[in-house]
Parts: sequence; C-alpha cells; structure tokens
Amino acid sequence: MGDRFAGTVLRDLDGGAARPTLGEIGLAQFAPYLMNRVMARWNANMSEALKQHDMTTAKMRALAVLSLSSTVTINELSVYAVTEQSTMSRTLDSLEEQGYIRRQPRPEDMRVRDVAITEEGRIAFEAVWPTMYELLMQLFDGVSDDEYTAFATILHKVLRNIRKYEI
Amino acid sequence: MGDRFAGTVLRDLDGGAARPTLGEIGLAQFAPYLMNRVMARWNANMSEALKQHDMTTAKMRALAVLSLSSTVTINELSVYAVTEQSTMSRTLDSLEEQGYIRRQPRPEDMRVRDVAITEEGRIAFEAVWPTMYELLMQLFDGVSDDEYTAFATILHKVLRNIRKYEI
Repeated sequence: MGDRFAGTVLRDLDGGAARPTLGEIGLAQFAPYLMNRVMARWNANMSEALKQHDMTTAKMRALAVLSLSSTVTINELSVYAVTEQSTMSRTLDSLEEQGYIRRQPRPEDMRVRDVAITEEGRIAFEAVWPTMYELLMQLFDGVSDDEYTAFATILHKVLRNIRKYEI
Repeated sequence: MGDRFAGTVLRDLDGGAARPTLGEIGLAQFAPYLMNRVMARWNANMSEALKQHDMTTAKMRALAVLSLSSTVTINELSVYAVTEQSTMSRTLDSLEEQGYIRRQPRPEDMRVRDVAITEEGRIAFEAVWPTMYELLMQLFDGVSDDEYTAFATILHKVLRNIRKYEI
C-alpha cells in the first residue's frame, strides 16, 4: 500500500494517490509498451529464422506445444500457441499433410478431435530448436539466471492477472 | 559464466554446457512464450476498451507517442507505435481528419513531413488514459514497485539486445 502510493508508476488510486499521466511515467516505464516493442521484433526475427527451416511461426508453435503434451484439442492449441483458431486449423491441415501430426476422434466424445505429434514432427521441431534457443540466448544476453527467474515469475503473475480480469 | 553453466534455461554453450531441450526448460520458463501470451491478451483487451472511446489501438499509440514528443516523422512513429508504416499512414490520415494531429513539411527538407499532436488530440488521448492506466494496474496487480522496476530494467536490456542482434 505504502509503496504503491509513493511509486512513480503503480499507484493506489483507491488509497487516495493521484493518477500519474503518461508524461510522468514515460513510455520507457510503461511495461506493455516495452513488451510490444520487444515481441514485435522477436516475432519478426523468429519468422525470418524459421524460413530457413521451411517452417512458419504457427507451425513451430503448434509443434512446440504438441512436443510437450500428449494430446490437445485445437481450442487448447490455439490458446497455447497464441494463434487464431482459423489459422491453427489451416496450420494443422498442412502439418498433417507433412506427416508431422495426427488427428483422431476422442473415443468418449467423437465430436472432439485430439491432436498429437508424430515422430517426424518431433524431428522437425528438434531441427529448429537450436535456432530458437540461440535467439533466446541473444535476447537475454547479459541477464543473469536470477534475473531471468525473477522476470519469468513476474510474467506468470501478469498472465494470471490478465486472465482474471478478462473483459 | 558459472551460473550460465549451471542454469536450467540460460546456458553458456560456448563454455561447454549442453543445450537444454524445450522439454527441460518447459514453456512456462520460455519467456518469449509468456510475453506473447500476455501481450496477445493485453492487446485484445486494450482494443476492446478503446472501442468505447471510438478509438483504435494504432490511433491511441500514435497519440501516446506524439503527446510525449514535439514532432516525429512517420518512420519514427511506426517504430515507436509498433505499427506497420502503411497502417500508420492511414491512421494519420484519419487522425488529421479528426483534427487530432497536424502534418507539415520540414523547412530544411521539404520531402520530410513532421507530425505533431494538436490540442484536440491531447484531449482525446487524456480521455482514454484513465482506462489504459486501469488496465496497467490490473496487469501488475500484486507486483511491488521494486519488482516492477526490475522487470522494466530487464525489458530495456532485452530491447537493446534484440536491436543489436537484428537479423
């Protein structure tokens, strides 16, 4: 409470603090602005790097999620892969043609089709992973493990918050 | 160096550490994944909230940047506002029609047109700012000022890194 009041960015308005203006905060302290800047560049770089592997961002994300889960539905996949469902649906068509995934109706509920990665899909993802890891290391160059862990912890907190406050 | 070697996420491959797999790291510790998840939701919520003010994300971002700078070019504006130049160009046309911005050729170089916010533009941005600030406070609910500052510091570092390693 006390530190919220005194803070230059996060202030307790209900506790009587005055709302700072954007000018007082500055864009450089407006975290969502910084994250948008970083992620626009990260996603563009990733997309470019994936081209050399004949892979798209949506395919890479789908394979990444599937390589970690036994089976998922297309709904879950589009949330985890941050990809619109229509795009994900086309992406899965293409991945199935390539033999990288399998879709099969769930025995208990034939309307649901579970998606699973194939051995070929795992190999395709493993081929792009070193590139992804290199980009991650470049992104966090000069950041210590402790700083990285603290950073990820805040990201978990804000991800929980933003799901809680869903409009 | 030492902590890079031992780290579960960031490892010094040149120093002889083995590259971890995505399975070892886990999506929950892959920071760009978390940031994409957060920002997809943030941008969707923001876009929705701005509709009530008859405002788009691109317009809000342009007005935010212009409210903090004396004059900027469309190139600078599209970088700072994380908006493609063609979109930004149309956005400025619309903002000019609304009387929120002014464009004028630079006296020293008539090929460059500087963009500046008008008083009406400032008022329009001030009208949406409380909503933006509320979303920011919700996003960082439960995050202390010190944590926020540390978080922003890492974001500055990664933004510098990603510009340095530009493909």
